[in-house]
Amino acid sequence: MKKNISLILMGVGGVGRQLLQHIVSCRSLHAKQGIHLRVVGVSDSKSLVVASDAFTMELGDTFLMEVCRVKSDGASLSTISGCGESKVFTNSESTKKIIDVAAFLGKSTGLALVDCSASSETIPVLTQAVDLDCCIVMANKKPLTSTMEDYDKLISYPRRIRHESTVGAGLPVIASLNRILSSGDPVHRIIGSLSGTLGYVMSEVEDGKPLSQVVQSAKNLGYTEPDPRDDLSGMDVARKALILARLLGRCINLDDIKIESLYPEEMAPSVMSIEDFLGTGILSLDKDIQERVSKASLNGNVLRYVCVIDASRCQVGIQELPKDSPLGRLRGSDNVLEIYTRCYNDQPLVIQGAGAGNDTTAAGVLADIIDIQDLFP
Amino acid sequence: MKKNISLILMGVGGVGRQLLQHIVSCRSLHAKQGIHLRVVGVSDSKSLVVASDAFTMELGDTFLMEVCRVKSDGASLSTISGCGESKVFTNSESTKKIIDVAAFLGKSTGLALVDCSASSETIPVLTQAVDLDCCIVMANKKPLTSTMEDYDKLISYPRRIRHESTVGAGLPVIASLNRILSSGDPVHRIIGSLSGTLGYVMSEVEDGKPLSQVVQSAKNLGYTEPDPRDDLSGMDVARKALILARLLGRCINLDDIKIESLYPEEMAPSVMSIEDFLGTGILSLDKDIQERVSKASLNGNVLRYVCVIDASRCQVGIQELPKDSPLGRLRGSDNVLEIYTRCYNDQPLVIQGAGAGNDTTAAGVLADIIDIQDLFP
Repeated sequence: MKKNISLILMGVGGVGRQLLQHIVSCRSLHAKQGIHLRVVGVSDSKSLVVASDAFTMELGDTFLMEVCRVKSDGASLSTISGCGESKVFTNSESTKKIIDVAAFLGKSTGLALVDCSASSETIPVLTQAVDLDCCIVMANKKPLTSTMEDYDKLISYPRRIRHESTVGAGLPVIASLNRILSSGDPVHRIIGSLSGTLGYVMSEVEDGKPLSQVVQSAKNLGYTEPDPRDDLSGMDVARKALILARLLGRCINLDDIKIESLYPEEMAPSVMSIEDFLGTGILSLDKDIQERVSKASLNGNVLRYVCVIDASRCQVGIQELPKDSPLGRLRGSDNVLEIYTRCYNDQPLVIQGAGAGNDTTAAGVLADIIDIQDLFP
Repeated sequence: MKKNISLILMGVGGVGRQLLQHIVSCRSLHAKQGIHLRVVGVSDSKSLVVASDAFTMELGDTFLMEVCRVKSDGASLSTISGCGESKVFTNSESTKKIIDVAAFLGKSTGLALVDCSASSETIPVLTQAVDLDCCIVMANKKPLTSTMEDYDKLISYPRRIRHESTVGAGLPVIASLNRILSSGDPVHRIIGSLSGTLGYVMSEVEDGKPLSQVVQSAKNLGYTEPDPRDDLSGMDVARKALILARLLGRCINLDDIKIESLYPEEMAPSVMSIEDFLGTGILSLDKDIQERVSKASLNGNVLRYVCVIDASRCQVGIQELPKDSPLGRLRGSDNVLEIYTRCYNDQPLVIQGAGAGNDTTAAGVLADIIDIQDLFP
């Protein structure tokens, strides 16, 4: 007997688009496993397309591939002509429409809301869907790093939520931590390098290159956000740290995390243009970083931009670490997480691998969707 | 609403006993998660104790702790007096009784058979239970490394089987591979060091110590089986490799795996006593290993006892590997697995940590049990 997993996908940019491609290319694999992923709606920031009768109809693969084509051209969903048996809604109507479908499917054949956007605007629809017995799968970090009230609401039915790709893309970080937690093995400490960009930057400055030059190269290689300060601020790593800390049961907010930014406030985007930052501002930071690298080196250590979570701390920033440790040996843009528990006491459980990229992030989302299949009738 | 997960535990030696302790000590944690683990039966190689009415009654925590006490003294379950409202069956009656309970609970409130034994004798009861809608959780490698016929039978309902602790104790190896497979990310190659004992042995001989001395130390430290040849034969690693290869879809048997034994046939347990092997036999192997270590070292490499699974190979034995790779850097008794896929192509997904020990193995089994909770009503 085939099991249908109905989905609405919010966010069809990079990760969401890749997810649609994975879903279509895995059709025969999933059929062998007795599963069919039924995409009944997709949305971007401007519009929502929903099958005209979400109970009996789904968006066909030809249409989903057209969505991928349009989005890879950078256009809006609303520009797709010939949606066939589906309806298009504007952004202002979309929350209500998604909730309509959720109310309809959530308690009958089941529905998973899949959030591959990077927006806080999905929070209201996600929290409402939870009450309608829907499942939630997220690559979007914003909902889980909002207020504790939103967080508690989202995780009110822990079995119905998955969010592997909010921390290390497809790396099995959340899945592994959940296994550890459910077996009663207390987590004493987590330390990790969770930014491919900052991992690359720190291993390059270790080789003696000036920070300014490394950041410019990283930008040229497409490793950074359009404004590299979005990476250098540490805010993205802090969100990941917050998600991990809350998973461990810590009731804290983003404000409670000590975050070390790699640039001073007077070079913040609100004060200085990207051009000025990359052209002059960052040059004045080279010397300080190089001195810190040299000082660490004298102790046989290296600098890494890490998150540290233990009983007393949740902080992100540069730490001096032994050259000969999993984190110290890290080169390039891989992520590494060391987890210390009762079972992994002297030597941590280490998970390492690519922690960014649309392909692996979307693969993590897809694995999460398959993982909730037993909740569908 | 509380969800009851009913269990029969087969094998209450080291891992099984530890599992019972974990179950009892996690009572309040699981209650918070709305789960209750209901142990309705336990067995060792000689007897089975089952709650007298498995539908309404369970074995109480006081009794389970008494089981742990008796087993840690090395005694048999049958020596427990005062089983209260439970019944004791001899080994010859136990399969029939377990199937009775499975037929009764499997299709109603659900039942998981948990196999923490190290015996092939559980295969008939496991395969029958699968047809009775039961779930199966295994730390025992034997059933999954039996014939392909048994294997196919056991995995006929893949969602109802978990066996994390058959490969890397509690390390999230199977869980991670299942995520990769369900997201359609093809696994190109797996290479790993899956024996804590052989990991220790290979890193010690690398330091110049004679094999004979290292094996004796490992035995004294309690790292080896009573007869160290059980580790040195590579058979345990081959079973783990077979489980991984079959998970990847390879229809092969133990016979199809190329296994390098660290001792020659003329020193096999059927030919030579343990005393003769450790006293004289193994001394004659020191020179050859030391020469291989030196030769590898000249190439900047080290020797590791690994399993390699790719499109054309499934083999276990000594390989020369770069000193500066996750496997080459491995020291002591940690396990490491490198998984190469489309998403983890240049750099593998690496999972590393303690891969042996009753505590972590039982934690892996417990995480598996919690993971199947959605299949219980």
